[in-house]
Amino acid sequence: MKLLRHVLLPPVLLLVLHHLAVADGGHVLVFPGEYSHWLNMRNIMEELVRRNHSVTVAVPDASPSINYNNSRDAAKFNFLVLKVSYTREEYHQLFLDFIHFSMTELPRASMLQKVLLLHNWAQRSIDFGMRQCDAMLKNEQLMATLRDAAFDAVLVDPMVMCGDLMADVLGLPLILSLRFSMGSVMERHCGHAVAPPSFVPTAPLPYGDHMTFRERVINMVTYVATSVITEFFWRTTLNQYYSELKGRPTSMCEILGNADIWLIRTFWDIETPRPVPPNFKYVGGLHCRPANKLPDDLEAFVQSSGDAGVVVVSFGSMVTNLTAERADAIATALGRIPQKVIWRFNHKPKTLAPNTKLCDWLPQNDLLGHPLTRAFVTHGGTNGLYEAVYHAVPLVGLPLFADQPDNLARLTRRGAAIVLDIHTMTSDELTEALQAVIDQPSYKTNMQYLSELHRERPVSPLSTAVFWVEYVMRHGGARHLRLASQELNWFQYHSVDVVLALLAVMIACCALCWAAVRCLLRSCRRRRREKKD
Amino acid sequence: MKLLRHVLLPPVLLLVLHHLAVADGGHVLVFPGEYSHWLNMRNIMEELVRRNHSVTVAVPDASPSINYNNSRDAAKFNFLVLKVSYTREEYHQLFLDFIHFSMTELPRASMLQKVLLLHNWAQRSIDFGMRQCDAMLKNEQLMATLRDAAFDAVLVDPMVMCGDLMADVLGLPLILSLRFSMGSVMERHCGHAVAPPSFVPTAPLPYGDHMTFRERVINMVTYVATSVITEFFWRTTLNQYYSELKGRPTSMCEILGNADIWLIRTFWDIETPRPVPPNFKYVGGLHCRPANKLPDDLEAFVQSSGDAGVVVVSFGSMVTNLTAERADAIATALGRIPQKVIWRFNHKPKTLAPNTKLCDWLPQNDLLGHPLTRAFVTHGGTNGLYEAVYHAVPLVGLPLFADQPDNLARLTRRGAAIVLDIHTMTSDELTEALQAVIDQPSYKTNMQYLSELHRERPVSPLSTAVFWVEYVMRHGGARHLRLASQELNWFQYHSVDVVLALLAVMIACCALCWAAVRCLLRSCRRRRREKKD
Repeated sequence: MKLLRHVLLPPVLLLVLHHLAVADGGHVLVFPGEYSHWLNMRNIMEELVRRNHSVTVAVPDASPSINYNNSRDAAKFNFLVLKVSYTREEYHQLFLDFIHFSMTELPRASMLQKVLLLHNWAQRSIDFGMRQCDAMLKNEQLMATLRDAAFDAVLVDPMVMCGDLMADVLGLPLILSLRFSMGSVMERHCGHAVAPPSFVPTAPLPYGDHMTFRERVINMVTYVATSVITEFFWRTTLNQYYSELKGRPTSMCEILGNADIWLIRTFWDIETPRPVPPNFKYVGGLHCRPANKLPDDLEAFVQSSGDAGVVVVSFGSMVTNLTAERADAIATALGRIPQKVIWRFNHKPKTLAPNTKLCDWLPQNDLLGHPLTRAFVTHGGTNGLYEAVYHAVPLVGLPLFADQPDNLARLTRRGAAIVLDIHTMTSDELTEALQAVIDQPSYKTNMQYLSELHRERPVSPLSTAVFWVEYVMRHGGARHLRLASQELNWFQYHSVDVVLALLAVMIACCALCWAAVRCLLRSCRRRRREKKD
Repeated sequence: MKLLRHVLLPPVLLLVLHHLAVADGGHVLVFPGEYSHWLNMRNIMEELVRRNHSVTVAVPDASPSINYNNSRDAAKFNFLVLKVSYTREEYHQLFLDFIHFSMTELPRASMLQKVLLLHNWAQRSIDFGMRQCDAMLKNEQLMATLRDAAFDAVLVDPMVMCGDLMADVLGLPLILSLRFSMGSVMERHCGHAVAPPSFVPTAPLPYGDHMTFRERVINMVTYVATSVITEFFWRTTLNQYYSELKGRPTSMCEILGNADIWLIRTFWDIETPRPVPPNFKYVGGLHCRPANKLPDDLEAFVQSSGDAGVVVVSFGSMVTNLTAERADAIATALGRIPQKVIWRFNHKPKTLAPNTKLCDWLPQNDLLGHPLTRAFVTHGGTNGLYEAVYHAVPLVGLPLFADQPDNLARLTRRGAAIVLDIHTMTSDELTEALQAVIDQPSYKTNMQYLSELHRERPVSPLSTAVFWVEYVMRHGGARHLRLASQELNWFQYHSVDVVLALLAVMIACCALCWAAVRCLLRSCRRRRREKKD
C-alpha cells in the first residue's frame, strides 16, 4: 500500500488493490479520453462492473472532465490517479484553444495554414501526453504495483497517449475505443483497415460514398496528405518517445497495431460502408438507451408545451459559452416557434423568450426519448447525434469543430437534418429551419428510417463492446481476428517482391526465347549461305 | 391453380399459393444447392419456418439430393418443382464425374490440364444450369404466378444458376449463401470483397495467412489466373445468357453484385482473417447444435466401447463407394485400434473387423457430440468438419476433392488433425494417425481451443443468418451495407482518373514554373547583354 500512496491521491485510491482482490470476474485497466470520450467509455465500464468485473481507471490528477472524487463513481471504479506535471487549468485550456481556433481561424485558413495550426496544437497536446506517460511509465514503483495487480486486459481511448504502451509493457491484451483518427491514418496504417479513397471519404471530409469527380480528387489529396503529414508527425515526435521507453526502435503504430480489438464508435446507419478487418467492431450508439422518466420540474415544463411539443438545444459538454451576439440570435429564433424550448446554456441571453428554459445540465437521452420532443438543435457531436438517431428526433445542426460538420452532413444527405453556419446564420434562418424539420414530415420519416437501421442489429452495440472485452480477457487476446498483413512490410504487403520475381522470370523466359530464336535464325542463315557457297 | 399445375408436379405443389396466403410472416423463395449445400441451407429454411415465415423451394424435378416428395419436408416447405429437360441420373452423373476426375486425374494433372478439366466440367455444369434457367425464366406462366406470389426475398446458393436473375426479374432483394467460389472470384469481382494475395490465400489453396515467399508467388499466380480464367469463362458463357434473358447487355457479376447480404459458410475459427464488406456475414457452422440422444441400438454400441470410446468414420453424402482395395486398407486399420468404430459405408470390406459397425446413414452431429467419441475420420467437407470443431473432436483427414484438402490443411496447421493421402496411405499409417490424435492430448486440446473460437460469438451463426434474411424482408434489402465501389468502373475504383488528373495538374504546374524560370533567365540574360552593350 505504501507504494501506491506515493503516486496516488488519497483516499479513494487505496481501495484499488482491495477491489481487485475481491472481484470474481476479470480485471480491466482503462485509459479513457476526456469530455465526450469519457462519457462514452463510462458506458462500457459501467456494464463491465455490472457484470462483476473490476475496472481500474487511470486518470491524471489534472483531468478536466473526470471527477475521480465523485463518490458515485468511486463506488464503481478503482481510480488510479496519476500525479502529472501540469494543472487542470492548463490541460482544460488546451482543449478550449482547440475549440477556439477550430471555430475562428480554421474555417478561414488556407490548406497550409490549417496544417500548421493543427500541427502546432497536436505538438502541444503531445507534450501533455508525454508528461502523463512519464508519470506512469517512468515510475518504477507504480509499474511494479500494476504488474502485481494482474490485469486481464487494457482498454484504451487513443485520444490518450501511452495506454497502448502500458499494455505492451505489462504484456496484456489491448482493446482500443475510438470514433476516428484524422484521415483515419491510425485505423489505416496501424490497424490495416483499408479505406480506398475512391469510395471511402477520408475522415473528417463531409462526403458520402457516392462522390463526384471533384470530391474524389479532394478526397485523394486529403488521403495522401493526411497519410504523409501524420506519418511525418509521428516519426518526429511519438516514435522517438516510444522507442526510448521501449528501449528498442519501435513506433506508436507498431504498438497500436497489437490491439486485439478496435471498438469503433460509429455504425452503418451514418457511416459509409467500407471493408472491415474482423477485429474491428462497429459499436456506434452504445450509450443510447430507452428514455427514463424526467425529473418532475422538467416533465411539468415539457407537458406544458401541449401538442406543440418541445425542442431540445445543446452544444455539448465542452462548449458552454457562445458570443453574446450569437446567443441572442439563437434565443430570438427559439422565441419565435410555438414549441417550448429546453436549452443547455449557462448565460442568460438578452433576447430570451418565455418559452425557453435554460439549464446547466440536461438529461439529454431522456429528453430526446420523450414523446413530446419534436427537434434537437445540436453541434453534431457523435454522442448527442446518436441519441437523436436512436430516438428518431430530427435535427437542426450548428456544427462547431472536429467531426461535427461531417456528422451533420451525413444526416443532411439522408434528409434528417438541416445544417446552418453558426457564425453567419440569422434568427430567421434558424426559425425557418426549426419549422421545416418539425412541420415537414419527411425529416421525421427519414430519421425514423435511420433509427431502424441503428436499432436493428443482432446484438446491441453495448453488448457487442462488452462481449469483446470479456472475450479478450477470457482468451488473453483475439489474435485470430487480426489481419496477417500487420506482420508484413510494405513491399510484401503490396506483393512488390512477388511481382518483381515473376517479372524477372518472365523477362528471363523472353530473353531465353529471343536467344533461341536468334540462334535458330543464325543457323538457318548459315545453312543458306553454305548452300549458296 | 391451373397455371401452376402446368409447370409443377402434383400433388405437393398445389399447396404453394395456399401456404403463402396463410403465413403471417414473410415469404422467401429459395434456390438451394445440391447435396451438402442443400443440407446446410435446410437449417436456415427450417429456422425461418419455425419463425412463422413461408419458405418456397425451387427445385428441378431431376434433383439428385432434394427429396421433394418427402412428406416431412413437404409439411414445412412449399416445393416449386421445375420440369427440366434432363434426368436425375444425368444430373447425378455430372457430380459423380466431378468427384471421379477430382480424385483420379486432377491430382496428377499439369496446371494447363487442370484448367481444361475444370473448364470442360464447368461447361457441362452450366449447360444443366441453363436448362434449369429455361424451365423458370422462359416459362411466362410460371413467372406470372411467381410475380403474383409476392415474395419478400430470394435466398440463393450460387451453386445453382439464375436464382439471382430470378430475384432481379421479380424485383426482389437477394441473399446469397456460399462457402467460397473458385479463387473467390465471385466474392472478389461481384461482391467487391478485397482479398490481397499477400496475406489472403486464394481459395482453395491450402495455405495459412503467414505464407512463405514461395507460397506467396503461387498464391499470386493462382489469384491472377483464377481471375482471368473465370472472367473469360463467364464472358463467353453466362454473361451472354444473362444478357439475352434480361434483354440488355449485362453480366452474371452485375446481377450477383446486387445481393444485399452474402452469407458465407465459414468463420474466423478456421478462415484466415481478411477485410470484410459490411454485407458479408460469416455464418460458418450454422448447422451445428448440441447432440441429441442416439437411437437405442447405436447408443448401446457406443456404450459397449467402454472407456476406449468410439471413432466415427464418414466420407460425406456424395462418396459412398471407394475401391475395394482402399476400403480394405481402411477396414484393416480400423480393426487394429482399441476403440469401437462406426463407419458410414454401404459395401462390406473383406477385412472388416468386429469392432467396426457399418451404417448407411449416421446421425453425425449427435455421434460427434457423444462424450465417448474420440476421433473423426473424415473427407473434410465443411459441414462435417464444423460439426467436429463444434464438438471438439480431433480429426484424421482423408481429403477427396474441392475445398477438402484446404479445409483439412487449416486444422492440421492448428494441430487438431492429421491428414493422409487416401490413394497411397497404408493401413499402418491410418492406425498410427488414429492412435496419435486419440492418445496425444495436444490434438484434443487444440480442437477444444478451436471449438471455443467457433462457439464464442455474440450471436449464433444460425441466428445471424436468419436475422439478416428477416432484416432484408423487413426493409426490402440492406443497401446501406453494400460497398459503393460496386457502382464504380475499374478506373474509378482504382482512382486512375483522379491520379491522371492530379498528374496532369502537376505537370502543368511544373511546365508553367519551367516556362516562368526560362522567361526570367532570358530576361536576366537580355539585361546583362544590354548592360554589356
